[in-house]
Amino acid sequence: MDMISFDLTKPLHIIPVGRVAIDFNPTDYNRPLNESTNFNRYLGGSPANIAVGMARLGDRVGFLARVSDDQFGTFVTDYFRAEGIDVSHIRRCEHGENLGLTFTEMLSPTQSSILMYREGVADLQLCPDDVDEEYIASSACLLISGTALCTSPTREASLKALTFALRSGVPVVFDADYRAYTWKSMDEIAIYTSLVAEKADIIMGSREEFSLMERLLGLDGSDEASAAYSLKKQAKICVIKHGKSGSRVYSRDDGCWDVKPFPVTALKGFGGGDGYASSFLHALMAGRSLPEALERGSASAAMLVASHACSRDMPTEEALENFIREEKAKYGDVIFAL
Amino acid sequence: MDMISFDLTKPLHIIPVGRVAIDFNPTDYNRPLNESTNFNRYLGGSPANIAVGMARLGDRVGFLARVSDDQFGTFVTDYFRAEGIDVSHIRRCEHGENLGLTFTEMLSPTQSSILMYREGVADLQLCPDDVDEEYIASSACLLISGTALCTSPTREASLKALTFALRSGVPVVFDADYRAYTWKSMDEIAIYTSLVAEKADIIMGSREEFSLMERLLGLDGSDEASAAYSLKKQAKICVIKHGKSGSRVYSRDDGCWDVKPFPVTALKGFGGGDGYASSFLHALMAGRSLPEALERGSASAAMLVASHACSRDMPTEEALENFIREEKAKYGDVIFAL
Amino acid sequence: MDMISFDLTKPLHIIPVGRVAIDFNPTDYNRPLNESTNFNRYLGGSPANIAVGMARLGDRVGFLARVSDDQFGTFVTDYFRAEGIDVSHIRRCEHGENLGLTFTEMLSPTQSSILMYREGVADLQLCPDDVDEEYIASSACLLISGTALCTSPTREASLKALTFALRSGVPVVFDADYRAYTWKSMDEIAIYTSLVAEKADIIMGSREEFSLMERLLGLDGSDEASAAYSLKKQAKICVIKHGKSGSRVYSRDDGCWDVKPFPVTALKGFGGGDGYASSFLHALMAGRSLPEALERGSASAAMLVASHACSRDMPTEEALENFIREEKAKYGDVIFAL
Amino acid sequence: MDMISFDLTKPLHIIPVGRVAIDFNPTDYNRPLNESTNFNRYLGGSPANIAVGMARLGDRVGFLARVSDDQFGTFVTDYFRAEGIDVSHIRRCEHGENLGLTFTEMLSPTQSSILMYREGVADLQLCPDDVDEEYIASSACLLISGTALCTSPTREASLKALTFALRSGVPVVFDADYRAYTWKSMDEIAIYTSLVAEKADIIMGSREEFSLMERLLGLDGSDEASAAYSLKKQAKICVIKHGKSGSRVYSRDDGCWDVKPFPVTALKGFGGGDGYASSFLHALMAGRSLPEALERGSASAAMLVASHACSRDMPTEEALENFIREEKAKYGDVIFAL
Repeated sequence: MDMISFDLTKPLHIIPVGRVAIDFNPTDYNRPLNESTNFNRYLGGSPANIAVGMARLGDRVGFLARVSDDQFGTFVTDYFRAEGIDVSHIRRCEHGENLGLTFTEMLSPTQSSILMYREGVADLQLCPDDVDEEYIASSACLLISGTALCTSPTREASLKALTFALRSGVPVVFDADYRAYTWKSMDEIAIYTSLVAEKADIIMGSREEFSLMERLLGLDGSDEASAAYSLKKQAKICVIKHGKSGSRVYSRDDGCWDVKPFPVTALKGFGGGDGYASSFLHALMAGRSLPEALERGSASAAMLVASHACSRDMPTEEALENFIREEKAKYGDVIFAL
Repeated sequence: MDMISFDLTKPLHIIPVGRVAIDFNPTDYNRPLNESTNFNRYLGGSPANIAVGMARLGDRVGFLARVSDDQFGTFVTDYFRAEGIDVSHIRRCEHGENLGLTFTEMLSPTQSSILMYREGVADLQLCPDDVDEEYIASSACLLISGTALCTSPTREASLKALTFALRSGVPVVFDADYRAYTWKSMDEIAIYTSLVAEKADIIMGSREEFSLMERLLGLDGSDEASAAYSLKKQAKICVIKHGKSGSRVYSRDDGCWDVKPFPVTALKGFGGGDGYASSFLHALMAGRSLPEALERGSASAAMLVASHACSRDMPTEEALENFIREEKAKYGDVIFAL
Repeated sequence: MDMISFDLTKPLHIIPVGRVAIDFNPTDYNRPLNESTNFNRYLGGSPANIAVGMARLGDRVGFLARVSDDQFGTFVTDYFRAEGIDVSHIRRCEHGENLGLTFTEMLSPTQSSILMYREGVADLQLCPDDVDEEYIASSACLLISGTALCTSPTREASLKALTFALRSGVPVVFDADYRAYTWKSMDEIAIYTSLVAEKADIIMGSREEFSLMERLLGLDGSDEASAAYSLKKQAKICVIKHGKSGSRVYSRDDGCWDVKPFPVTALKGFGGGDGYASSFLHALMAGRSLPEALERGSASAAMLVASHACSRDMPTEEALENFIREEKAKYGDVIFAL
Repeated sequence: MDMISFDLTKPLHIIPVGRVAIDFNPTDYNRPLNESTNFNRYLGGSPANIAVGMARLGDRVGFLARVSDDQFGTFVTDYFRAEGIDVSHIRRCEHGENLGLTFTEMLSPTQSSILMYREGVADLQLCPDDVDEEYIASSACLLISGTALCTSPTREASLKALTFALRSGVPVVFDADYRAYTWKSMDEIAIYTSLVAEKADIIMGSREEFSLMERLLGLDGSDEASAAYSLKKQAKICVIKHGKSGSRVYSRDDGCWDVKPFPVTALKGFGGGDGYASSFLHALMAGRSLPEALERGSASAAMLVASHACSRDMPTEEALENFIREEKAKYGDVIFAL
């Protein structure tokens, strides 16, 4: 894959921008959340999970975020540090903002929901002054999470980071990561996610997220139309996810691909996307071909939905390769050219 | 004790107004909160704990509050209902507000702290329209928690409930329950807590809370001055707490009392006040003498600081009496006339 | 009149608290505001007009307020200073807040309306820190305008000033001065205006304003009930205005009075109340009898509705006496014992 | 000039988006604003002035805005209607927002300042739902004023209008119109103005405004760099104004031009820009050459700074041509190729 040029001689491989939060997962599964009485605490938040996933795979990972100035902020910063992630640009909030929380309800492998604390939380306080041009330029890639665009000042901080990445020739990944919370209207979502998507080299999102993004553009809602629109702008790769039926991947130069999920027994309905993103991006940056990278993304997604946590259960390279070998031996290929 | 007339023929004995929240207490004690990985969930919030405490002792308890419109709101409402508390005036929030959360850190029996989620939470949304004159009039007593005064619209809802109680001749208990969160300035605290205190029949608070209340009044900071000021207004009883050294209680007609704590081994540094309030008020309303009521308050406080939870561990009448009998046998009296 | 003891040996006679604003009155009368093209500018705001009115009559007047930090703030401060009003406690806003504006529409002597700019204006920024105990204690009287209670932080500043006045034995005048703007609900109005009214020595308001104040108190809406309620609290005098048909005045010791308006040709429908308040309070403080003070209030009200401006046209003692002499010669008495 | 294709067969020639406000200009000139006592009222706001200017010159003009739901909203809407401007997409505010106000101080022809009321005003309430795709598509041109980007929701409404214009092939004019009010930070200004500028066909702004726009782009602050950057994006024409020394105009295909001001005696220091924009755009759309259009812009600017009002004094075609003829006879050419 040589469409996008990642300069791996830089100090960092990737800097995700956005949400660091905490997941509280009930230890008593298959029960409504209002009846759960005991919870485990994990580092959470989509870009934070991706950061951990990529660090586990050996990437040099940075992070641009605000965290709470309390014990929870200490927990997540310590967790990152222990994973080898650079925390030099994770700042504490100054007005008592709390870290975002996600309480998960796992009624069954196919029914799960989340209860979020997102009102005025720490990650939304990332502000333009936190964004350092040199830091952005020191990375081979910038990943912007859609949630970081949902309100001010994190929105402007993300747009400033994008501006600096474009100036320095740093490739940009846009992970739609749509959460209904905090956004004020459908038009706002469409306006800001499309603004970033049209300047990104890689766009990752679910079918629903692409449709939200394109709401004002008059497209027909098909993957083909979405991909055609984006590939005419800056994007070289579009990953469009369809939940349990897998994903469709369109590239400017390397063809189109159908990615099937590995047939594992899911424990929960979330976390798969962050596994996908981290293994896919790692492989792509490591120089693997697009189908190879997709296979790794699909494997990591399968491993994550089968485990209790997200961040804690991100696979190492060895675990990932073992999983792929074993699963392919049993079920065959999951990547097909379209 | 006949200074305050509680009409126990009314449908309810007491209606606390204010905070219903959730406590997350780590199961791994004596460790900093940032290192805790597993938590138990309990119903929390000072007036909610008092409601549970009094219901356990046999009182007919109502509640006036707003809770979140999610699984946590369901949990607390179900919990109240299971304790026999009337939930007819607990309303769901309409704009996605979350329930307040308290994460506790129990480093040691003498060192504990809390990390609170209080920004825009459900209980602060209680509004004047939620306050029903007939409901207030249907109770033998109204308890207003100081936290319910910290911001609008719960402040105005509380003041409206106070107005209705005064009109209907319902005695009012003011529990200072000061939490630094959400209040905008020291002057605001002084203004609103003193406004309610000067119309309350019973005032309960720590020495620090009385001093905050009196900040603009030019008193000298002594218990004697605080009590003299309040007893000249509407108050018949002032309970001034001094942490581990016990409390001083001043009454208009029944003398002054020194209340010593029962010498238990504490597990945590909080919850005692809610145990105190519930057992003391229950006994007073049941017609016991002031020193009898204080003994029960002190006993309940001791039982609570020795247990892991607050709401869950509120004692029954029988447990309370057993505790008092055993402790007094070992250590003697704890209530002394001044 | 000796029911209220005003200590005129103090440095100031009165300190009004609240609104200083600007009135823009069209020079082309009897035309809808949307067609007016030329405007005169005057100092405005009810307590500011009263301050000017009392200063013209010879009182030593202070003021407690915030004004804009721009040319309009300079204008009103200079205007006050030129009238001999003490401006030592008029502070400039620090975050760019503008002065409130009132554009008046005078369609006919009986039809006038106003268009107000009140959103986040300077006078609403008066905060508890602005309230100095010594300043309050240095005055023979404190006047609180109802508008100063409509939102935070001016609400808490007013309540703090009230607390200091009560501590220092300074008599309090409450002028209801209700403006729908900025208040959040009918319950808020009732709660805060009644809180101040029940501690005031003199209450002045229209029939509508008294009814708003009493909304949660279960009174029957009659002047008799309003007066009876207030005179049982702290009030010694209640002035209840009925627009063009005059006002009813109830006192604790000096009887009840019917005050008829002097039959002048009105130019506009506002400003009369501020004239009334300033002349009435001046006379009362100067030691005149209640009916004498009311006659002067009624005369000043008549003079104001017949003039183009409010502040600019406040009468001197001589003008007031001439007016009373001439009008009484023509029309006879306007004050009647009930 | 055929670089930009304006489809004049459409129902409208231009739709400005943004600010409609009111100017109060003192009738007593050369005096500090705090001493001014009488004011004339005019329709104001940069895009509103441009709309009036272009309508006077014969263009079919629409407008997209929110105005106050009061007599001032009626005044501006009536004024537009009387000028022949389409007011079908001017909506009234629904939550009592006031129209923006500008009080001008004209100390001398070279010293003037303004005092603005911009807090939460009506024009800032324009929201995405107000933006109708068909309406945008019905115009030969869309003009976005920088002030409309300063806060939400007018920011998102403007970006939505931009999206629709791009979809429908409607050329876009970006008039920087920077006002410090309401913007939260320098980075915000740079981010949003550059986002619109990079998609606009014509960019108009002062040297200062271009520098604010480019703050994050690493340009050197010269007109050449600004123009080179923008002309590589979507822009065909960049107008960079230098106050009294005139403006520099860069085009993709029609060369670069130095525009000198006509040497008139100025009465005030503002309004010139709106005159310039309206006459320049009208001429350009009417098919005149770039230098011809610039000459007309410069003439209109000169006429405006010499008059008391802005909107009221926009010239007709005849007045403009007379002015140019007379001035050129006296002083010669003002447009020079670079």
